[in-house]
Amino acid sequence: MTISAFRADLGDIPVDDHPRIVQQRSRDHYWYSPVLKAKLDHVTAEIVVSPRSNDEVGTVLAAAYRHGVAITPRGAGTGNYGQAMPLLGGAMLNLMNMDKVLEISKDRVRAQAGAVMEKIDEQTKACVGGELRFHPSTYRMASIGGFIAGGSGGVGSVRWGGLRNLGSILGLKVITCEAEPRELDLEGEDILKVAHAYGTNGIIVEAEMPLAASYDWVDMVVGFDDFMAASRFAHGVASQDSLLVKEVSTYAAPIPESYFNRHKPYLKDGQSVVLLMVAPVALAAMTLFIEHHQGDLRYRADTASEDERKRLPPVYELAWNHTTLRALKVDPTITYLQTRYPTIEHLEHIIGLLGDELPMHIEMTRQDGLVTFSGLPLVRYTSEARLEEIIAIHESNGCNVFNPHRFTLEEGGMKRTDQKQLDFKRQADPKGMLNPGKMIAWENPDFDFSAGKAWLFDGLNPVNAA
Amino acid sequence: MTISAFRADLGDIPVDDHPRIVQQRSRDHYWYSPVLKAKLDHVTAEIVVSPRSNDEVGTVLAAAYRHGVAITPRGAGTGNYGQAMPLLGGAMLNLMNMDKVLEISKDRVRAQAGAVMEKIDEQTKACVGGELRFHPSTYRMASIGGFIAGGSGGVGSVRWGGLRNLGSILGLKVITCEAEPRELDLEGEDILKVAHAYGTNGIIVEAEMPLAASYDWVDMVVGFDDFMAASRFAHGVASQDSLLVKEVSTYAAPIPESYFNRHKPYLKDGQSVVLLMVAPVALAAMTLFIEHHQGDLRYRADTASEDERKRLPPVYELAWNHTTLRALKVDPTITYLQTRYPTIEHLEHIIGLLGDELPMHIEMTRQDGLVTFSGLPLVRYTSEARLEEIIAIHESNGCNVFNPHRFTLEEGGMKRTDQKQLDFKRQADPKGMLNPGKMIAWENPDFDFSAGKAWLFDGLNPVNAA
Repeated sequence: MTISAFRADLGDIPVDDHPRIVQQRSRDHYWYSPVLKAKLDHVTAEIVVSPRSNDEVGTVLAAAYRHGVAITPRGAGTGNYGQAMPLLGGAMLNLMNMDKVLEISKDRVRAQAGAVMEKIDEQTKACVGGELRFHPSTYRMASIGGFIAGGSGGVGSVRWGGLRNLGSILGLKVITCEAEPRELDLEGEDILKVAHAYGTNGIIVEAEMPLAASYDWVDMVVGFDDFMAASRFAHGVASQDSLLVKEVSTYAAPIPESYFNRHKPYLKDGQSVVLLMVAPVALAAMTLFIEHHQGDLRYRADTASEDERKRLPPVYELAWNHTTLRALKVDPTITYLQTRYPTIEHLEHIIGLLGDELPMHIEMTRQDGLVTFSGLPLVRYTSEARLEEIIAIHESNGCNVFNPHRFTLEEGGMKRTDQKQLDFKRQADPKGMLNPGKMIAWENPDFDFSAGKAWLFDGLNPVNAA
Repeated sequence: MTISAFRADLGDIPVDDHPRIVQQRSRDHYWYSPVLKAKLDHVTAEIVVSPRSNDEVGTVLAAAYRHGVAITPRGAGTGNYGQAMPLLGGAMLNLMNMDKVLEISKDRVRAQAGAVMEKIDEQTKACVGGELRFHPSTYRMASIGGFIAGGSGGVGSVRWGGLRNLGSILGLKVITCEAEPRELDLEGEDILKVAHAYGTNGIIVEAEMPLAASYDWVDMVVGFDDFMAASRFAHGVASQDSLLVKEVSTYAAPIPESYFNRHKPYLKDGQSVVLLMVAPVALAAMTLFIEHHQGDLRYRADTASEDERKRLPPVYELAWNHTTLRALKVDPTITYLQTRYPTIEHLEHIIGLLGDELPMHIEMTRQDGLVTFSGLPLVRYTSEARLEEIIAIHESNGCNVFNPHRFTLEEGGMKRTDQKQLDFKRQADPKGMLNPGKMIAWENPDFDFSAGKAWLFDGLNPVNAA
């Protein structure tokens, strides 16, 4: 049997083939999507392999190549597009044992792929007063390697843009899946071949990331009777370069009162809210700005008691995909979309068309210098056909959708593959053993790279080139 | 005689009435403007007073109030709108003896008004690894108080906006000109009453400013054969939030070859250039970005020899109003404008209309979240009438002009006065002794505050309020 032969080549590298463990580790948060849930529920690997060093990763990949075993890399499994699910079975490559912070300097940190982002920040804060520019809402669980392979941005994107931007990742070490796996140090443009590629073209084992100045960010919850007033305030905050913030997001009523359970004592029914993470140096200006916008400051962590602060999750755990998670806990029929509204008028128009079928959640981000309404609206799901209609309504009204109900790189729309990436996969994974089924361009040689879509990771095209 | 009586009340506060010294201290860089030069050349105070403490400032202001002596406050005198010129004679209040850094914490610094900005940064860098968010090109001379009273932004504005933005100044201490001068601590909105008010409504003696993380910024000079290609590149850099920069500015040929003398060995005749200050963490990404734009990287300080670096001024001393200064040294007929081009198309259109009569110089800035072409074009001056035509050409083509050939707050267009500021002046300077002649709203009770103009400091109107 293939897997037995593969396993026999692994020496003392930890493996686990207990069916429940293997099934558990074969899952990410794909179940946020009823579409993916139906499609991927049966998916499971045959074994979990947990190497402890680059050499051991090389051993695993050589054995996979030799025996034709599919390899699906995995960090904490907090993604939600099925990106870490083993479509063809084989082995899950668990990288969470490789969790060391390797090097810290004033403006950068180098860590192993399995290092948890919160743990990285603990060390960089103590060492140089720096922190990662951005992190997902799963900050306390997610690994840096998983974030780079399957994420795009998050808390901090309102200031720093996203992973896709030049300079957001300084270097990656990947290991290839060949007879004799190579360690490749990627820099500059080459980084974009591997970022957000779900591990399809090389296993990320180390990442070097820039650090920003760290602050004791202060959580704020601001209520507005009208969601559009909340949106104008949020856009204003994100546009004021002098108001140092790490997170600005808006939630239409009844999202806050329905799903933000532990914050409930601070909320007022019927209000939409804006969540903020504010640098201490900006607090006075922010409270003034809130007054100007007639915002109702419901909670601010800097004046809360120690006891209150302990009871509440940080606001970033209400934001980004944690919003969807909290909604799903209360109402299992909920799902979500990933959208982009070019202007506040587009946003208002879509809300007018879809109302409470699409409880609105906006993350303010910077995209190529523009303050942008990045949507993560909830969807009161009825059918896949209606979900497609909602997507079509967005697109026909000039709003982008990055479909989170697709498990391939290309169909999700976050990542544009291109010839360079495909060529790189041919070198790094000549047999197609790495996360098979996720890159259509690999499976289908006639794939049209130039299909007219909006992409967040726009391939390797020169960014804003003349 | 009034001045003698005033002087007699000053005790041992240092004064100087040597005519040459007094005349020298009565001047700022008003001579950048041939219009201001003609109007203000005769202006001089009668005495210079140089207090060493807040108490001494109070003593001076009480004496000025008692004897009806005009007081014009002065830092290093590096402004260029005549803002520190004593239109009605009287006393120059030299604040450069009050130059102490009072307090440094992780995210802020408090200093006396006369502290030189470079000196402040030296201390904050050593102490907490922080630096002021922005500074003028006169960083090595200018005082923090003078910058706040007469400046608007500068190096760093590409990231942090300007002084006018909420949160850019954390606190000011001002002293009033009354029978018994008061020390007022201004915070929040009240700060905007005094910022960029030329000292007309209270003497700034202390300022508290936010700190940003400090970097060993790397100077770069990038050449382009075409100025519009340079402009697209500069806009692209300023739009990439991940590329940490402190300065991005463009200079149409023949500005660089004509006026950047010490950089001449690195320049190529006929090229327009972009000047950059880049954080070390962004160098790799920046060089890639330059390649994408087919830029010609003529100089980078990180690979230059120690000897080369010593020979060259920092690029910020080619930028902002230092460009005008360098041009004036070579060609005394040159002057300049302050403009704003809403889009790159506006910029191209104006260049098409005016050509080399207006050698273009753009500072990329962030204004309320938008990457903005802030112009400081040189003007090959022929007459005041033609200068007015050039301004009119801008305005009739949808481009703003903040006229640097006017010495009043209102006419320059940087600062909108309003009823609140006027009320504040009534309290802080009831006799109108402070920098008389600079605030039209004070001189003319019928002044129309709502005249349809673009203002950088838009009075105390709620910023981006709903």
